[in-house]
Amino acid sequence: MPELRKDPVIGRWVIIATERARRPDDFRHASEDSTSEPPCPFCIGREHETPPEVYAVRDDTVPNGPGWKVRIVSSIAPALRVEGNLDRRGVGLYDVMSGIGAHEVVVETPQHVASVAQLDESQIALVLQGYVARIADLARDPRLKYVLIFKNHGYAAGGGRVQHARSQLIATPVTPKRVKEELLGARRYFEYKERCIFCDIMKQELAEGDRIVLDHPDFVVLTPFASRFPFELWLLPKEHSPDFGTISRDKVASLASVLKQTMGRLGVALNDPPYNYILHTAPFRVSRKGGYWKTLDDDYHWHIEIMPRLIRVAGFEWGSGFYINPTPPEEAARYLRSVEAPVTSERAAHA
Amino acid sequence: MPELRKDPVIGRWVIIATERARRPDDFRHASEDSTSEPPCPFCIGREHETPPEVYAVRDDTVPNGPGWKVRIVSSIAPALRVEGNLDRRGVGLYDVMSGIGAHEVVVETPQHVASVAQLDESQIALVLQGYVARIADLARDPRLKYVLIFKNHGYAAGGGRVQHARSQLIATPVTPKRVKEELLGARRYFEYKERCIFCDIMKQELAEGDRIVLDHPDFVVLTPFASRFPFELWLLPKEHSPDFGTISRDKVASLASVLKQTMGRLGVALNDPPYNYILHTAPFRVSRKGGYWKTLDDDYHWHIEIMPRLIRVAGFEWGSGFYINPTPPEEAARYLRSVEAPVTSERAAHA
Repeated sequence: MPELRKDPVIGRWVIIATERARRPDDFRHASEDSTSEPPCPFCIGREHETPPEVYAVRDDTVPNGPGWKVRIVSSIAPALRVEGNLDRRGVGLYDVMSGIGAHEVVVETPQHVASVAQLDESQIALVLQGYVARIADLARDPRLKYVLIFKNHGYAAGGGRVQHARSQLIATPVTPKRVKEELLGARRYFEYKERCIFCDIMKQELAEGDRIVLDHPDFVVLTPFASRFPFELWLLPKEHSPDFGTISRDKVASLASVLKQTMGRLGVALNDPPYNYILHTAPFRVSRKGGYWKTLDDDYHWHIEIMPRLIRVAGFEWGSGFYINPTPPEEAARYLRSVEAPVTSERAAHA
Repeated sequence: MPELRKDPVIGRWVIIATERARRPDDFRHASEDSTSEPPCPFCIGREHETPPEVYAVRDDTVPNGPGWKVRIVSSIAPALRVEGNLDRRGVGLYDVMSGIGAHEVVVETPQHVASVAQLDESQIALVLQGYVARIADLARDPRLKYVLIFKNHGYAAGGGRVQHARSQLIATPVTPKRVKEELLGARRYFEYKERCIFCDIMKQELAEGDRIVLDHPDFVVLTPFASRFPFELWLLPKEHSPDFGTISRDKVASLASVLKQTMGRLGVALNDPPYNYILHTAPFRVSRKGGYWKTLDDDYHWHIEIMPRLIRVAGFEWGSGFYINPTPPEEAARYLRSVEAPVTSERAAHA
């Protein structure tokens, strides 16, 4: 059983993932040099090589067989487990919780295509609807407080060797520290200004223009003023909305188009860089009715953060929480505005 | 001039390091494959290849010539600059500060030796005395609030290709977020318990024993209960002390011995892994007399955090602030207790 442990000084939770336990020898002999791609368990026809699906987009076909467009399965090496009781206890001055949660893999296409930029917009929209469906389902579990959706693309970004487009979600029994910090920062601003800080950021950025990469009627893509990483991007809905789970079908279609454009440009500008993206949305409502987060509807704003992995994070960053970014975000935005996203369709990419 | 920018939502500072500006093309063509070692500018006789020294241990020799044992120079690509005024201003809803600070490289030996475990204890003690001297000097600059000392060993840990033992320091005009979190967490505990949380952690760990790696009369090395990374280590002085800068010469000698032992064991256990270490000590006293940090003497406790870089940090960690650690710290400690540090001297290593 995995275990959640809390750092007693700064309150950071870690998952001691006993199910993937690694012995010293695993690290000694771990070679970073192997770049050959193993057989892909995510391709159509290989459904038996993954755990059973928890969600799929299918036309009248049998679960766990072929005939799907998007498929969501449990992780084969889950960081957290769905089964069990949420047992929280002290161990001397420490805090421990059983490793309850969910860890799922969103297979974004039945074809062996690596990049989201190569998928059709309609296919990307199906992936996003899959996110919405899983959030809605997991939010019904009273043990869970949050679901983080993320993507690791490329080996340097923590992606596996298998080059098949996929994202992941991890649902946790506590609201993660980074999300809490955002919620509290946004609330503090709201208490002072009575406005959403993300709405204000977008307003200032659209007026200045220097850091805007894409200005779509429904979404903005920008390089944040205090970018941690070269070519870091934030994608925000223009209309105020705390909760990604409430997105309309129309907005999903727009978002699919904006994501394809954005990832396409990033791919062209930086030659298919490794990257992570994460979706930050409000915690599940069930755990905060009337209490702590009561102003949340006004003061939080969901968004996607895209972080290309172009530089190595080192001791200074780990020790300080400061980041050193060698590329001014204005320069990154100017460059990304200047490149054209390639016009690809899934069929062409796979031909 | 580099610039400090503050994220308006969560208050994290970043350094936009204009002096090392990287254009998109630098990333496109950046090759991670080159592993050949460039000529070393840190070896004895090459003093003219670094900026002038700000500190050195020498016997009657001329600055910036040979005849030194430890040498501290400004970084050739500094993230922050010493010259200029500390100008803090708003840009709409954003916060900017001029990039004032110091960025120095501590060359730990005149010989071309890669690992601190290969240095003699007396040599390591000279390095540590260099840290103390630089902290004392930088603390006199009223513009600066903190100095972070750190080491990046190995390419995956952000170290350069040159394999010459060295550490770095960066002094900043704000107390870094990670340090503030520790200070506040420790203060909260102190307010409730009237005891230092680090002292209590050590007491519990020494009583349990499971996570102890080294128990020296003056220092403890342990794997923290909520380790973020496999084989993460904390090294703490047994005697309560908030400020590394006040360490006695006797304790420096003990610390040198414990560091050599610790890094030697880590090297044997994991085959010379890439790692970062960071020294967390109290902020400069000048900036907090009587005010916010008045209880600091009782509630903070300096320590060194050692983080081997064995796994890749990915989207979940970046998005949540959670960490997934596949190696239980009890297992890491057991393994590190079982290996012997090699008996090396600098002469032998260099022969």
